[in-house]
Amino acid sequence: MRKISLTGIKPTGTPHLGNYVGAIRPALELTKTYDTVYFIADYHALTTVQNGAEMRANIYKVAATWLALGLNPEESLFYKQSDIPEIFELSWALSCFTPKGFMNRAHAYKAKVEANTAAGVDVDSNVNMGLYCYPCLMDADILMFSADIVPVGKDQKQHVEFARDIAIKFNKHFGEDVFTVPEPVFQESTGVIPGLDGRKMSKSYDNYIDIFLEPKALKKRLGKIVTNSQGIEEPKDPDTCNVFKLYKLFATPEQTEALAARYRAGGMGWGHAKQELQNVLEEHLGAAREKYFYLLDHTDEIEKILAYGKERARAKAKVMMDRVRHLLGTY
Amino acid sequence: MRKISLTGIKPTGTPHLGNYVGAIRPALELTKTYDTVYFIADYHALTTVQNGAEMRANIYKVAATWLALGLNPEESLFYKQSDIPEIFELSWALSCFTPKGFMNRAHAYKAKVEANTAAGVDVDSNVNMGLYCYPCLMDADILMFSADIVPVGKDQKQHVEFARDIAIKFNKHFGEDVFTVPEPVFQESTGVIPGLDGRKMSKSYDNYIDIFLEPKALKKRLGKIVTNSQGIEEPKDPDTCNVFKLYKLFATPEQTEALAARYRAGGMGWGHAKQELQNVLEEHLGAAREKYFYLLDHTDEIEKILAYGKERARAKAKVMMDRVRHLLGTY
Repeated sequence: MRKISLTGIKPTGTPHLGNYVGAIRPALELTKTYDTVYFIADYHALTTVQNGAEMRANIYKVAATWLALGLNPEESLFYKQSDIPEIFELSWALSCFTPKGFMNRAHAYKAKVEANTAAGVDVDSNVNMGLYCYPCLMDADILMFSADIVPVGKDQKQHVEFARDIAIKFNKHFGEDVFTVPEPVFQESTGVIPGLDGRKMSKSYDNYIDIFLEPKALKKRLGKIVTNSQGIEEPKDPDTCNVFKLYKLFATPEQTEALAARYRAGGMGWGHAKQELQNVLEEHLGAAREKYFYLLDHTDEIEKILAYGKERARAKAKVMMDRVRHLLGTY
Repeated sequence: MRKISLTGIKPTGTPHLGNYVGAIRPALELTKTYDTVYFIADYHALTTVQNGAEMRANIYKVAATWLALGLNPEESLFYKQSDIPEIFELSWALSCFTPKGFMNRAHAYKAKVEANTAAGVDVDSNVNMGLYCYPCLMDADILMFSADIVPVGKDQKQHVEFARDIAIKFNKHFGEDVFTVPEPVFQESTGVIPGLDGRKMSKSYDNYIDIFLEPKALKKRLGKIVTNSQGIEEPKDPDTCNVFKLYKLFATPEQTEALAARYRAGGMGWGHAKQELQNVLEEHLGAAREKYFYLLDHTDEIEKILAYGKERARAKAKVMMDRVRHLLGTY
């Protein structure tokens, strides 16, 4: 039997090319070696997204993004968190076995406390209970579906460790291996993915490239990638070039080698290099873009897919909760 | 349309005569003027009752107690909290609109902090997240079922005020009167109900009288009520007598007056007074005792009643959550 990997997707904005290469693509790679669970963590996003229209749009966008990029809802379990009320019940049950000290030590909360302290206001100023209890909900997300591994960034490692501790404590308390003890797994670093200006691609620098830009808009955006002022005829260094750095994230080794040779030979201008980048992006993401916009035009299909995932996820959640409720005596 | 009153019943032990007179009887009186909701707050009890067999037994006992004492599951909505997973979902949603400062100020948590401070240990020592977040779950308990009033003791007033604040805040944020803003209501004081030794009847003093004692055991227990050493012939003062204080909680005004006259006349010993108390208790609670033990022998009937309540409560919860989810954008 394959092990289970679980990935949460927070619907807080449209992912960009950096997110695709750094997170989405490696997460989808996991289907090769794991039974995969992907869920849209909409109730996690509620700590910051408190507008219904925005939340709904975000949910459709991330669902369409992942589906377009290859998430197969038959092969993987794909649902949205809010469709599984049992997760919240489990979260409450686990919270009764969770020392408050865990939450006090959680990074996101501590960062807020530090910022408040620096600003000279009450430590809990502008902290809502959703932000504070976030790791308790993550415990339930992870343990409900018996995840063996949870691929995370360094900042989320601690949350998976909380889930481990709670799983071990609960299993010991009731003398049964109810919960699988999960492991955090760090994705292999893809290195820094440069944005238009060479700094890390990020929404906050406004240097990002959308995943699904139409060819004309993409051409315009790629035109903004900062290059040096070398003329066409001059030989160029691929390794210091932002265009090339992006190109090799999508090209085959052969394509990469061939473009590097053209850089070094001279006679190729930045316009050409950018056109090569556009070609390889189109090759990679052209069909996904079609699918993405198709799905956003047919949100009923997204809803059908999520309804299918809901049905399957609730069936699993029911089995788990029947067992948990029996141990707790709440049934 | 009648207003809605909501009462939570924590399954943490067998209620005694003091609980009956001080809480259960007045709570059941509300059916005369309100649409009443009673629920077994099993997931609240989980902060302290962490043993399945004990929890299950407690649930059956409190259900049997209230049903035996007159709770009519056709007339009132009667369910157990753990049967309504939507309550936990709502609790999470509301927590994203709840300042952490509310929880810091909650009485139960503050008492724990003070005790820890006095003991020289970490303020959050032995505080689990269930204890800390208790008021967040109460918000959902109350707001889910559009309670207009929540009958509470003084120590719970604060929790209802939190629910008021959250309801007002949420309604304002979304520009809709989604939640009824609840009012705390204090039950008319029955005064101190004396235990066997004259102090307030309480489990911790071991001076309590079970509600459903069999006649023989009841006689033995009533024999332990502390009286003075006056002889049979002496005239006695009813107002300073523990037996009389208990008697008048159950007797009609006429019965009370008649027994007071016998006290003052002299010629009646304590044994007789206790027999009168036993008679009036039997009159009041004899049939209820039969029903109580019948139900505990037929827990399938309790389960059927709770399943009926679950069905009705979930239908209401669905209507509320459809509305809430639409506003949040999680559907």
